[in-house]
Amino acid sequence: MRAMVLRGKELAVEDVPVPKPGPGQVLVRVRACGICGSDLHAARYLDSMIAAAQQQKRGAWYGRDIAAGIVMGHEFAGEVVEAGPGAEAWTPGTRVTSMPVLIAPESATGFLSVGYATEVPGAYGEYILLSAPLLLRVPDHVSDDVAATTEPCAVGLHAVRESRITPAETALVMGAGPIGLMTLTWLRQQGVAYVAVSDPAPERRALAASLGADDVFDPRAVTLADVLDEAIGRRKPRQPGELAYGAPATVNAPDVVFECVGVPGTLQQAMELVTVRGRVVVVGVCMEPDTITPLLGINKQLTLQFVLGYTAAEFAETLDAFAAGTVDTSPMVTRHVGLDELPATFAALADPRDCKVIVIP
Amino acid sequence: MRAMVLRGKELAVEDVPVPKPGPGQVLVRVRACGICGSDLHAARYLDSMIAAAQQQKRGAWYGRDIAAGIVMGHEFAGEVVEAGPGAEAWTPGTRVTSMPVLIAPESATGFLSVGYATEVPGAYGEYILLSAPLLLRVPDHVSDDVAATTEPCAVGLHAVRESRITPAETALVMGAGPIGLMTLTWLRQQGVAYVAVSDPAPERRALAASLGADDVFDPRAVTLADVLDEAIGRRKPRQPGELAYGAPATVNAPDVVFECVGVPGTLQQAMELVTVRGRVVVVGVCMEPDTITPLLGINKQLTLQFVLGYTAAEFAETLDAFAAGTVDTSPMVTRHVGLDELPATFAALADPRDCKVIVIP
Repeated sequence: MRAMVLRGKELAVEDVPVPKPGPGQVLVRVRACGICGSDLHAARYLDSMIAAAQQQKRGAWYGRDIAAGIVMGHEFAGEVVEAGPGAEAWTPGTRVTSMPVLIAPESATGFLSVGYATEVPGAYGEYILLSAPLLLRVPDHVSDDVAATTEPCAVGLHAVRESRITPAETALVMGAGPIGLMTLTWLRQQGVAYVAVSDPAPERRALAASLGADDVFDPRAVTLADVLDEAIGRRKPRQPGELAYGAPATVNAPDVVFECVGVPGTLQQAMELVTVRGRVVVVGVCMEPDTITPLLGINKQLTLQFVLGYTAAEFAETLDAFAAGTVDTSPMVTRHVGLDELPATFAALADPRDCKVIVIP
Repeated sequence: MRAMVLRGKELAVEDVPVPKPGPGQVLVRVRACGICGSDLHAARYLDSMIAAAQQQKRGAWYGRDIAAGIVMGHEFAGEVVEAGPGAEAWTPGTRVTSMPVLIAPESATGFLSVGYATEVPGAYGEYILLSAPLLLRVPDHVSDDVAATTEPCAVGLHAVRESRITPAETALVMGAGPIGLMTLTWLRQQGVAYVAVSDPAPERRALAASLGADDVFDPRAVTLADVLDEAIGRRKPRQPGELAYGAPATVNAPDVVFECVGVPGTLQQAMELVTVRGRVVVVGVCMEPDTITPLLGINKQLTLQFVLGYTAAEFAETLDAFAAGTVDTSPMVTRHVGLDELPATFAALADPRDCKVIVIP
């Protein structure tokens, strides 16, 4: 079969073996696979990611031998082609998605990360293996594109859940890439009182506005603290400050800031923009060391929550929300590419006119 | 009266006016005042603290004019000397302590921070003003020294409460200065399963051990992750890791790390030492920018909680614990000095043989 292989920092479409479904596994033909920012990161920063994993002795990259090459791709929808022993209930032609996890009792961890493993291919190729117990049937009226966004959309749900944000609270989403927009979508779905989105790209701000952001701001054109002060002040007067340790806040700042950018400096900006006793939820994956002012965190008594992934329940709940029509990610799919175009698309994906690009292998 | 005045970076004992108690206020003769690390910070970093407050438009230093000089000192016990109108229920001779807050309706915030205000003196002098509604009577069997530690001890209680640590969990306290030891004391009082303390100074480690630390470690002599792995592994087997996103942790790491050092670099160390999904509680006040690796926080799904101060209830609860004998801070009081020795003591307080030094004005 054909697949895009990452070897070192090189990306190339090659012929690789079609995997064979083992017990409890199914072979799935990939119908759609989203390009994830993490894959762009991986293509660029694989060395430092592996080094970090070795230092922490954990994580998807721990102990990886990447000399053999990796087929990435973990945001997929497909159809069952062949069932392994014990998985025959999944008949060929059934449209499915799954968390990008393959149960693998023989591996050290008991599972393989589909799209970040050397042992099995990810979905930037024609076929993948999935585990029957983790399969979710895609309802007929949910498109391949939307089903392929279950994974990134579940990341947004997880971030919103972990923040424990309530409908009475206000939020700022920094960055209107796919993850920022997925986060926005869930904040809207949860009825959060006010959601602003900041992004320097006009195309992304327009997309955020169409997805229900109360306000969209260009952080290069306005002073975010001032425009948020005005916007939130109109909606929700702040409570009086506490007695001890400093004056009450003079600004109407968001209760929760979702950092969905992931470049050095945004963490500090988020800490500056969030309200006293607020929470900064770190969703963006910053691949470099970053500098913050701890005194700011202390004076404002902030919480920084680093979040990752989602639970199995959140993944399933996301697909259910697509089926019920309460969440729709289709406006975020801006383009389709074929497998042959994929290496060049990776190189070009800094272009903010794109949001979620879907590969049709 | 005599008091130590901070003006710019200069400390000098001077004659200053005895303040006059207004309505609802009492004049208190200071019987004991602890030297706080924040005061040492203030004497050294006042410029940057004021700059940070101006930037944030809040905090105790916001809008301060320090040209007039400040009498610091906010960890005090004393006795009532004179009651202002409406405060006559507090009879002369009554031993009291209080949160370092003076209710001041005429000020912009409604209160003044005793020890960090230019308008009223702090307790590095003979007399202070306190607000009758905030006064707590010191029981006869609680010494002046111990009563003066109510404030820093309440900081430890607040940090432990905010961490939501449970008795089944494990903790590392980084730094065995007064705040680290106060935190240790409350972790012990709350029955937390395992508490390790790290500090390079042998005197401080000995004090931590005498206050009930399960283990004390010299971070310069051992690899903390390894000794904690062994110590915690003996006590509490880790739960199996989660399915998605990386292997289960291979180390038995503390559930909560209390960062009580406050110098650049310790935040990153705390993030490295805490367990997956663990909490780092930032109690130490780092006065400089600090660099962290966000990817580490993301991979471990950490929460960083910056904490500050305490609630009025926690302050009162601390004094109650002294009275009930469930918490005893007297081993932490290592020395007494007079007012005249105070400027030189400030200059010398990097000496780790000292823990809490009490001024007797």
